[in-house]
Amino acid sequence: MATDRPIPTVPAVDGNRLWDSLTAMAALGATAKGGCRRVAFTDEDRRGRDLFRSWCEVEGLRVSVDVFGNMFARRPGRSNLPPVLVGSHLDTQPTGGRFDGVYGVLAGLELVRTLNAAGIMTERPIEIVNWTNEEGAIYRSMMGSEVFTGALALEEALALVDLDGRRLGDALDAIGYRGTAGLWSYPVHCYFEAHIEQGPVLEAHGTTIGVVTDGIAFRRYAITIEGREAHAGPTPMALRRDAMVTAAALIGATHAHALEVEGARATFGYLKAHPGVPNTLAGRVEMSADLRHREDEMLDGLEERLAADLQRVCAEQGTSATLRRVVTSPRVRFHPALRRRVAEAAQALGYSREEIVSGAGHDACNIARRIPAAMIFIPCKDGISHNEAESAEPADCEAGCNVLLHAVLAAANDTTALEAAP
Amino acid sequence: MATDRPIPTVPAVDGNRLWDSLTAMAALGATAKGGCRRVAFTDEDRRGRDLFRSWCEVEGLRVSVDVFGNMFARRPGRSNLPPVLVGSHLDTQPTGGRFDGVYGVLAGLELVRTLNAAGIMTERPIEIVNWTNEEGAIYRSMMGSEVFTGALALEEALALVDLDGRRLGDALDAIGYRGTAGLWSYPVHCYFEAHIEQGPVLEAHGTTIGVVTDGIAFRRYAITIEGREAHAGPTPMALRRDAMVTAAALIGATHAHALEVEGARATFGYLKAHPGVPNTLAGRVEMSADLRHREDEMLDGLEERLAADLQRVCAEQGTSATLRRVVTSPRVRFHPALRRRVAEAAQALGYSREEIVSGAGHDACNIARRIPAAMIFIPCKDGISHNEAESAEPADCEAGCNVLLHAVLAAANDTTALEAAP
Repeated sequence: MATDRPIPTVPAVDGNRLWDSLTAMAALGATAKGGCRRVAFTDEDRRGRDLFRSWCEVEGLRVSVDVFGNMFARRPGRSNLPPVLVGSHLDTQPTGGRFDGVYGVLAGLELVRTLNAAGIMTERPIEIVNWTNEEGAIYRSMMGSEVFTGALALEEALALVDLDGRRLGDALDAIGYRGTAGLWSYPVHCYFEAHIEQGPVLEAHGTTIGVVTDGIAFRRYAITIEGREAHAGPTPMALRRDAMVTAAALIGATHAHALEVEGARATFGYLKAHPGVPNTLAGRVEMSADLRHREDEMLDGLEERLAADLQRVCAEQGTSATLRRVVTSPRVRFHPALRRRVAEAAQALGYSREEIVSGAGHDACNIARRIPAAMIFIPCKDGISHNEAESAEPADCEAGCNVLLHAVLAAANDTTALEAAP
Repeated sequence: MATDRPIPTVPAVDGNRLWDSLTAMAALGATAKGGCRRVAFTDEDRRGRDLFRSWCEVEGLRVSVDVFGNMFARRPGRSNLPPVLVGSHLDTQPTGGRFDGVYGVLAGLELVRTLNAAGIMTERPIEIVNWTNEEGAIYRSMMGSEVFTGALALEEALALVDLDGRRLGDALDAIGYRGTAGLWSYPVHCYFEAHIEQGPVLEAHGTTIGVVTDGIAFRRYAITIEGREAHAGPTPMALRRDAMVTAAALIGATHAHALEVEGARATFGYLKAHPGVPNTLAGRVEMSADLRHREDEMLDGLEERLAADLQRVCAEQGTSATLRRVVTSPRVRFHPALRRRVAEAAQALGYSREEIVSGAGHDACNIARRIPAAMIFIPCKDGISHNEAESAEPADCEAGCNVLLHAVLAAANDTTALEAAP
């Protein structure tokens, strides 16, 4: 239900200013190949945070840092109702790009700048958030939002140790970003996150705006196949128990099945053969499997098929195997009312749009498990991400930011609470 | 053509004495799991050589060491005709067994002990040889025989550097086994090598003696498949260029083809995926392929098929690849007259026998490219080798040694030169 105050005409964001901010942030940790290395808890992270803080302060925002280093830059509303959060993360992969995460934070900043320049006040406060260590280059990924929502206990998170034996809490102290604000110490109305797609769909379809419906459900598996190590020369084919051939058969079968099931994704990204030398057939293979589908029930089916295929190929090759699920991430549903706001904004602004599933995990997925949340995707070149070659068009960045502005503004001027979605 | 002197009745070797020698040698570098770690150029190698030398000297043999560390223990003949060489290697894999190589050297020693005990003189001298660094755990494999035959230049071999930056020549000096004898400084009549099969065939058939006809031809390849690295989540199956799926399809196709072609062997022992993490599909795979067949011409066909299959699976997956042959080892033919001697000896002694191809490389393969050579295989448990669990039965060790004794004796009493085989 809308407020009774009239909503002013929404101005457009300044695409050049947004691009300049992206460029300035990319200079901190810039790599020779045009990417960015601003890993969480490093000096580059600190400098990125400092720059963001200074920009926010220029806009008159009050910046607070919580006990896990998450940064919140608050623009007051007319009321003291629960705020609208908008943001993402400023940290990057070790050989990361200039857009993943950064775009969502700086699009939040740009919309605030636009509102300030136009002198537009909202009913609810708006807070731009920068989540700590989304990329998980150290410790593990999506930690800031995980700790914020309580999915990971603060004490447990702070006690984590990296490969050099450094406790996460000490790493946070080292960059001066262990704050004093409590975790989720006041109610939040809803959360928006704009992000590059990190996949090739929007670009392939020529679509500007992705209205994200769901965070894909995914499960990760550790598979160990045991065969019999033997010399490549004296061992006839018929007498082999080859773990590598078993692994290859599993990959082939699972890939073929995933191609048949609409929306399914199967990936075998890691494989280690023992002893791993050319003239010995593998006695053991350790490998990962990653299965994804929007529907948890479909994922049940993919998992059953993976287990059955593994059993079958082992029987064929005289090998044995274990399959262990190591990660379970159920489907995340973004809030229907917020998705509608995003779609309406794209419609009003004349941008092409389509519904899309987020295949990757995002801070928004953690948040959406607790409160209404939505994501806006924009295309990225060739679907490439987690890569120094990651690239997005200025026009798409501007478009996504305009949609974000409209959606946030609508939410921030809606004084009624959102119903929890099913 | 036999000599005109009467050949005395051949005594049997002492199986217990042979076994005791194998056990005593296995104590040098013995591992907790019952295997042996007597890596070339280590102190264990030196102690193994010293023990072998002392045993030879007790038998009145003159031990010489050549400039590459190959050891020759000479038992004089009645004549000064070119000697019969018999031997193998005393070095082991880092986690090796008690029989691979060692058996061939100590079977040579046992036959000399038997001749000495029976007071049997031969026409030709007999020399037991221990080749340097067959296992190639450091530098590369089968080096002693390679340098001896001139396939690898001495200076080049001595200048090789290991992972710690140590020159091979210095490593040889360090154990006191850089000798002064020249390489192949006098003619040699022929060469015999007894060895465990290192494969499962004799055991599977219940055969005691393998009459080795050929050293299998083999080629090794380095394959690089280039796909497109992408996030496992946001990348639909249809838009992937997955190097791992390509590799799996190649392994499946090549394995299936090798099963169809009688005598073919195909092995993919090494595979490395980049970036090698569970949630990213592989943008690049580097892998080995090892193809073997007794016939070089058949290997040509297997190679063509590998290249064609690679091209096909790349086209199917939208990937590209390079295939580079890095090792070429043509078929080795063991000498028909010497093979006949081995078969006749097994026949005379009442041992079951069958013709067999050596799938592995041996010093005998290097030697056979220059002079008449033959190999005798005995079964090993489960075909396991290059493994601490490597095992052979005392009765089989004794049987192989008896066959070796008969064959060597026949050769050493044949004063005519052998014709070069085709």
